[in-house]
Amino acid sequence: MIGGGRGSFIGAVHRMAAALDGHIELVGGAFSSDPERSKLSGADLFLDPQRCYGTYQEMITTEAGLPENIRIELVSIVTPNHMHFGPAMMALDHGFHVVCDKPLCLTLDEAKQLAEKVKSSGLLFALTHNYTGYPMVKQAKQMVAHGELGHIRRVVVEYPQGWLSTALETTQQKQAAWRTDPSQSGVAGAMGDIGTHAENLIEYVTGLKIESLCADLHTHIPGRKLDDDGSVLLRFGNGARGVLCASQISAGEENNLRLRVYGEKGSLDWSQMEPNSLVARWLDKPMQVFRTGGIGLFREAEMHTRFPAGHPEGYLEAFANIYRNVAYCLQANLTNEKAHPAYFDCPTIEDGVRGMEFIEAVVKSGKDDSVKWIKF
Amino acid sequence: MIGGGRGSFIGAVHRMAAALDGHIELVGGAFSSDPERSKLSGADLFLDPQRCYGTYQEMITTEAGLPENIRIELVSIVTPNHMHFGPAMMALDHGFHVVCDKPLCLTLDEAKQLAEKVKSSGLLFALTHNYTGYPMVKQAKQMVAHGELGHIRRVVVEYPQGWLSTALETTQQKQAAWRTDPSQSGVAGAMGDIGTHAENLIEYVTGLKIESLCADLHTHIPGRKLDDDGSVLLRFGNGARGVLCASQISAGEENNLRLRVYGEKGSLDWSQMEPNSLVARWLDKPMQVFRTGGIGLFREAEMHTRFPAGHPEGYLEAFANIYRNVAYCLQANLTNEKAHPAYFDCPTIEDGVRGMEFIEAVVKSGKDDSVKWIKF
Amino acid sequence: MIGGGRGSFIGAVHRMAAALDGHIELVGGAFSSDPERSKLSGADLFLDPQRCYGTYQEMITTEAGLPENIRIELVSIVTPNHMHFGPAMMALDHGFHVVCDKPLCLTLDEAKQLAEKVKSSGLLFALTHNYTGYPMVKQAKQMVAHGELGHIRRVVVEYPQGWLSTALETTQQKQAAWRTDPSQSGVAGAMGDIGTHAENLIEYVTGLKIESLCADLHTHIPGRKLDDDGSVLLRFGNGARGVLCASQISAGEENNLRLRVYGEKGSLDWSQMEPNSLVARWLDKPMQVFRTGGIGLFREAEMHTRFPAGHPEGYLEAFANIYRNVAYCLQANLTNEKAHPAYFDCPTIEDGVRGMEFIEAVVKSGKDDSVKWIKF
Amino acid sequence: MIGGGRGSFIGAVHRMAAALDGHIELVGGAFSSDPERSKLSGADLFLDPQRCYGTYQEMITTEAGLPENIRIELVSIVTPNHMHFGPAMMALDHGFHVVCDKPLCLTLDEAKQLAEKVKSSGLLFALTHNYTGYPMVKQAKQMVAHGELGHIRRVVVEYPQGWLSTALETTQQKQAAWRTDPSQSGVAGAMGDIGTHAENLIEYVTGLKIESLCADLHTHIPGRKLDDDGSVLLRFGNGARGVLCASQISAGEENNLRLRVYGEKGSLDWSQMEPNSLVARWLDKPMQVFRTGGIGLFREAEMHTRFPAGHPEGYLEAFANIYRNVAYCLQANLTNEKAHPAYFDCPTIEDGVRGMEFIEAVVKSGKDDSVKWIKF
Repeated sequence: MIGGGRGSFIGAVHRMAAALDGHIELVGGAFSSDPERSKLSGADLFLDPQRCYGTYQEMITTEAGLPENIRIELVSIVTPNHMHFGPAMMALDHGFHVVCDKPLCLTLDEAKQLAEKVKSSGLLFALTHNYTGYPMVKQAKQMVAHGELGHIRRVVVEYPQGWLSTALETTQQKQAAWRTDPSQSGVAGAMGDIGTHAENLIEYVTGLKIESLCADLHTHIPGRKLDDDGSVLLRFGNGARGVLCASQISAGEENNLRLRVYGEKGSLDWSQMEPNSLVARWLDKPMQVFRTGGIGLFREAEMHTRFPAGHPEGYLEAFANIYRNVAYCLQANLTNEKAHPAYFDCPTIEDGVRGMEFIEAVVKSGKDDSVKWIKF
Repeated sequence: MIGGGRGSFIGAVHRMAAALDGHIELVGGAFSSDPERSKLSGADLFLDPQRCYGTYQEMITTEAGLPENIRIELVSIVTPNHMHFGPAMMALDHGFHVVCDKPLCLTLDEAKQLAEKVKSSGLLFALTHNYTGYPMVKQAKQMVAHGELGHIRRVVVEYPQGWLSTALETTQQKQAAWRTDPSQSGVAGAMGDIGTHAENLIEYVTGLKIESLCADLHTHIPGRKLDDDGSVLLRFGNGARGVLCASQISAGEENNLRLRVYGEKGSLDWSQMEPNSLVARWLDKPMQVFRTGGIGLFREAEMHTRFPAGHPEGYLEAFANIYRNVAYCLQANLTNEKAHPAYFDCPTIEDGVRGMEFIEAVVKSGKDDSVKWIKF
Repeated sequence: MIGGGRGSFIGAVHRMAAALDGHIELVGGAFSSDPERSKLSGADLFLDPQRCYGTYQEMITTEAGLPENIRIELVSIVTPNHMHFGPAMMALDHGFHVVCDKPLCLTLDEAKQLAEKVKSSGLLFALTHNYTGYPMVKQAKQMVAHGELGHIRRVVVEYPQGWLSTALETTQQKQAAWRTDPSQSGVAGAMGDIGTHAENLIEYVTGLKIESLCADLHTHIPGRKLDDDGSVLLRFGNGARGVLCASQISAGEENNLRLRVYGEKGSLDWSQMEPNSLVARWLDKPMQVFRTGGIGLFREAEMHTRFPAGHPEGYLEAFANIYRNVAYCLQANLTNEKAHPAYFDCPTIEDGVRGMEFIEAVVKSGKDDSVKWIKF
Repeated sequence: MIGGGRGSFIGAVHRMAAALDGHIELVGGAFSSDPERSKLSGADLFLDPQRCYGTYQEMITTEAGLPENIRIELVSIVTPNHMHFGPAMMALDHGFHVVCDKPLCLTLDEAKQLAEKVKSSGLLFALTHNYTGYPMVKQAKQMVAHGELGHIRRVVVEYPQGWLSTALETTQQKQAAWRTDPSQSGVAGAMGDIGTHAENLIEYVTGLKIESLCADLHTHIPGRKLDDDGSVLLRFGNGARGVLCASQISAGEENNLRLRVYGEKGSLDWSQMEPNSLVARWLDKPMQVFRTGGIGLFREAEMHTRFPAGHPEGYLEAFANIYRNVAYCLQANLTNEKAHPAYFDCPTIEDGVRGMEFIEAVVKSGKDDSVKWIKF
C-alpha cells in the first residue's frame, strides 16, 4: 500500500475492504513520505517492519527484488491525487498490478500515459469508483441494459455534501487541506473529488456517454482555491438530457449521492445513503422496490451481495466488491478458470481517463460564461 | 366561476377549496363556452340555472346588474391560459375581485396590463400558486426569513411528472391537449405549467430573486409543440446558485415538487408528496423534522393548519388556504379588523408578472445554444 | 348537527367533510347544551338563527314539524360518547337519517337497542370510522378479499398517540377532559377512543372476526380514571393471530395508526400518517407500492380518490368519503339509481355494535389478570 | 473456529467480522463434524491443513498443546445451538477465551453451568447479540441512561421475518432444518432464534428487566415442531409495559428488527434495516434524527463508527464491533491499558443466561392458556 498512514481516511477503508473476503493480504507499504511515520503506521497494522518503507520508490524496487512467492503482487495507491501518477507508473513498470484511488491523476495527459502503460504491460489496473460496487447499482445497470426502461430520456445525478461548508482547510484538517489545494488535488475541487463519482455512476448505469455539458461552478468559501459547489447540464449521445450536481457546501448533507434514470417506460431511483433499495416506477404497473438480497434480481446484483435480505450492507461491502473482483480477476489470470463475467466487473483505466476528460471539460465550462456547451 | 365545467380537473379543485372553510359560496358561473354544457355543469352543482351563463361576458354584465346583496363579489378563473386575460380584465373592470389560475396569462405584456388594472382598480387579485399554501412551506419561509440558515448559498427545486411521457394529447385527453397547444398554453409547456410553480416556490420561500438563468429545454415526444422536459441553472441576486428542473416526461413520477435550500448554517428539504414534514439539517446540531400541527412552528405555519399533528393535510387543504386567505382579505376590507398579517398571505398579481418574466426568459434561453446566461 | 360548537374538534371536521363534495348542506344544529353558545356557534357558520337550537330535543321536534322540502334529512351527532344514544334514538324516531361519531355509545346494551331501532326504522345510520375511507385501505381490503395474500396468518394493528402523556385533562383542555371522564367516555379510555378504530380497521380490511383476546391495559398518569395505554393479543376465527395496541401516552407520537396483514403469499403495510402508499411485500416477487390515484388499483380504491396521483389526499378527504357515500346512499334511496356498490360502503350500526363488544371484552380482560383469554 | 464450514451462514459472518479491523487472525478450526469437509473448508480459507481439525475436541486438545506464541487464544463457536455447551465448556477448561453465537445453549441449566465456569475461569466469554453493536443502539442506550426520555413507560420491540413462511426445512435448506429441529435448536423456534435478540435489545437499551410476560406462540406451518410466530405482553420492574413480537412467517419481511421506547418526555425509534438513523420524538420540541457518524452523539456511539456520516455502515460493521471490543478487552487484559470503558462493551454470559430464562418463560407461557402472567 502506498499512502494510508496514520490520519488517513481512505487508506483504512482500502485495508478493510481488501481484508473483508480474505482473498488479499496486506504485507507491507510506504504509508507516509515520512519514513518514521511509515514504520509506525505499519506497526499499528502488525506488519513486518522490514516491509514498511519510507518511500514508494524504495518499496517498489525492494519488493521487486524479493522472491516471487514472497513479494507483493498488487499495489494499492491511496495517496492524494498528485501522488497517483508516479507510483502507478513505477508499479506497472515493475510488473505489479495496481488498485488506485480516484480521480486517476492530475491531468488528462497523465491519464493517457497511464492508459498506454496499462495496455502495454497487460497488468490489471482498477480504479476505486466504489459506488459501482453496490448490488442495487448492478441491478440498475442490468435493468437499463435489458431495455426495461426503454429508450433513456433523462438522467439526474446529485452528490451533495456539507462538510466543506466552512473553511475547514484552515484548521489543519488533513482531508480538507489537500482536497482544496490545487497542487495536490488538481484543477477541480468538488467536481474532481465527488463529481467524478457522479459522472462515472451515470455512464456505468446507463451505458450512455455524456457528449456535451454546460457547467456553473462556484467557490462559496472566501480564500478557497477550488470549486466547492457546481451544477452541470448534460447532453448524451442518444439525445437524452440530464443534470449533474456536486457540492461540498450543501450544509447538513452527509454523502448523499443519488441517481435517477428516466426512460420511455419507467424510471429508477437509487440513493447511496439507503443503498439496499432500488425504486422502479412504471408507466403501466405499480411502483416496485428491489432490495439487496431480495427477489427478482439479476445475477449481477446477487453476486455482489453477502447476506440475506434485511442484513444491511453498506459502503464498506460495496468497496470490498471492487477488491473481491480484483482478486477474482487475478485468480482467473492464474487459473484460466471460467467464472461468471460479472465477477470481472471493476472500474478500469478507461474509467479513469473518462473522469479526467470530465474534469477538464467541466472546469473549462465553469470558467467560461460566454460559451454555453462544451463537447467532450 | 369561469371555466371548470364537466371534464375539468382544476375547476373542481377550486370549488372544493373554496367550500372547505365555509367562507365562500359558489352561486353561479360560465362553466363552458358551450351554453348547454354550462347549464348542465351548473345543474351538477345544484346551482340556479338563471346564474349559469353561456359566456363569461354574459355572466359579468348580468351579475354586475344585480343588487349588491345578491351579485357575486369574487370571480374564479379556471380556464386554460389563453382565457385568463380577457375574463380577468373584464371582471376587474366591473368591480369584481378575481382569483385566477396560473400561469397568469399568455405574454408578459398581457401580465403588465393586468397588473396596471389591478393597481388602478384597488381590487383583490389572487393567483393560485397553491403550493405556497402548505403549512411547512410557510414554516420554511419563516425559518429563512429569520436567518436560521444564515446566508443562502444554494437552492435546488425540481418538479418531475411523468403523465406526458406518451403523446397523450393525441387521445382527446383534455388536460394534455390544451397544455401542449401553444395557442391555449402560450410559449412554454412544462416550464409554464409546472416550472412557474417551481420558480414561485423558490422566490416565495427564500425571498431571493433569480437574476439570470441558463436553460436546456427539450421536447422528447415527436410532434409535440412545446417543451416537455427542462433543466435550468440559476443565479440569484445574493450570489446564491441553483438548479430548477421541470419535466413532464419523467416516467413514473407523479407530482413530485421538491425544494431544497442550503444556507451557511444548515438546509431545508420539503417534498410536496409528503407535505407535512419539513426536514432541517444543520452543521452544528442533529437533523430536525418539523411537522404540520407539530411543535416549534412559527405562527404562520400554525395558522394554515386545520387539524392536530398526524391527521394528514394535503393538496386540497393547501389550496383551500389560498381561498381562506382571500376570504380573510375581503372581510378585512369590509371590517377593517386587525387580523394577524399571516392571514393576508396569498399569491399576487406581482407573482403572476414574475412568472411571465420567467417563462419568457427560460424559453428564450432554451431556444438559444449560443448564449449561456439570460438576465431577467 | 348535534354538538360541534365553539371549541369542538370533530364537529368542524364533520362540517368540512360534509361540505367537501357539495352533496350535503348544513342548515342548522344544536351545537351546544348552552342555547346562547349554540346560537353563537351557528352564527359563526352563517346559519339561520331560527335553526340554531338550544337542545337536540328542540331541534329534532322543531325540524320534524317543518315542511318536507325545508326540514333536515340527516342528523350528524358529534357530541361526546354519552350524548350519542339519546340523540340517535330520538332522530331515528322522528325519521331522520343519522351520521354518528364513534364509538357508538356507552354500553353494549345501548348499542343493541340502537341496532334494533335502525333495523325497524329502515333509516340510514353511518358511524364515522373515517379511517376506512382512505383509498389505500379500500385497496388493501380488496387485495385480501381477492386472495392475493392467501390465507391470513397474522395481523398487527397499532395506534399510538402521545397527546395524553401529561395530565392534560386537569388543564381544562376540553378534548382531554371528556375522554378521560368515565361518565362521558364510558368504561374505556384509549381503547374506546382509538382502540375501536384499530379493531374496526382490522375487521374491515381482513374480513376476519376477532374471536378472543388477552389484554394488558394500564393507566400511567396518576389520577386518570381510564386506560391510557394498552396492548392486546388477538386470535381470529380462521386461526390467525395478532396484536392490537392503542396508547395515548406514547410521547412524541402523533396519530400513528398502522395496519400490517400477513398472509401465506405476502403482506400489506399501511400507515395513516402516509396514507397514500400501500406497501405490498411478497414471497415470490419484488415489493410493490400502490399509490392513491396510481396504477393497478381496484375500482373501490379509485372511486374514493379525487385527484391525480401525487396530489396528496389526507384525513379530511377520507372522512369526506364517508359523507359522500352517505349522500350516494340517500340519493339511491330516492332514485333507485344503480351506482357501483362501492359507493354504498360506509360503516354501519353493526360496526358500532361490534365496537362496543370489543370495548366490553378488552376492558374485562384488562381488569382481570387471572383469566388469559376472553372470547367475544 | 468451531463450525462455520461450507454452507454455513453465520460462520462466514463471524470470519468477516473478526477480520474487519485486523485485530484477530483466524488460524484454524473444526469447521465440520466431517473431518474431510473440515479440511476442505479450511482450504477455502487458505489455512494450514494441520490446524483444520475433524472434531472440536481434537482442536482444543491439540491447540492447547502448542507453544503459547502459536496456539489460539480465542475460540469462536458458530455451530447450531445444541453444539454450544460442550465446545464452550471444553474451551474454557483449556484456558481459551470464547466468542459464542446466540442463544447461549439448550437449557437454563446448561446456561448456569457455563456462567459458573466463566466466573471461575476468569476468561472472557462474549455472546454475539450483534444488534447491540450498532452505533445508534449505543446512542439510544445512552439517551435512556442519561434520563433524556424520563421515566420509561412503554417498550415495543418487533422482529418479523418471512423466510420460514413455507416448509423450507423439508427442502434440505440447512439453516431452516436445524432451526426447526428441537434436538438442535432447543425448546423454542422463532422465540429462540430471534426473540432472544429482541429481548436482549430491550434490556440492553432500557436497562430495565422484564419481570413477567404473557405469550401467544403459534406454529403456522403444518408439521413444524417449533413456534414460528409469537407475540408477548411484557411488564417491567419499573412499571413499564410493552410488547415483543418475533415471527418467521411474516411473509415478505426481511429482517425487520425494530425497537421503540417511550418515556415521559419523548420516545426513540430504531430499525435495524435502516440502522444509521435513530429517531427521537419529543413532547416539547421538534422531532430529531440522530445519524451514525453525525452530530450530537454520545462517545459510546461515536466510538463504534468507522466512517464519516453518510457512508452507510451495516450488519457486518455492527457485528465486527463485538469482535473489535473482544480484541480490546483481551489487549487490556495483557496491557492494563486504560481505554474508554465503552470499548469493553460486549454481550456477556449473563446476557446468555438471561436469554435462556426468557426462552423458558416464553415457551411455558405459550404452552399454557390457563395462566395469564409468567414471572421471570
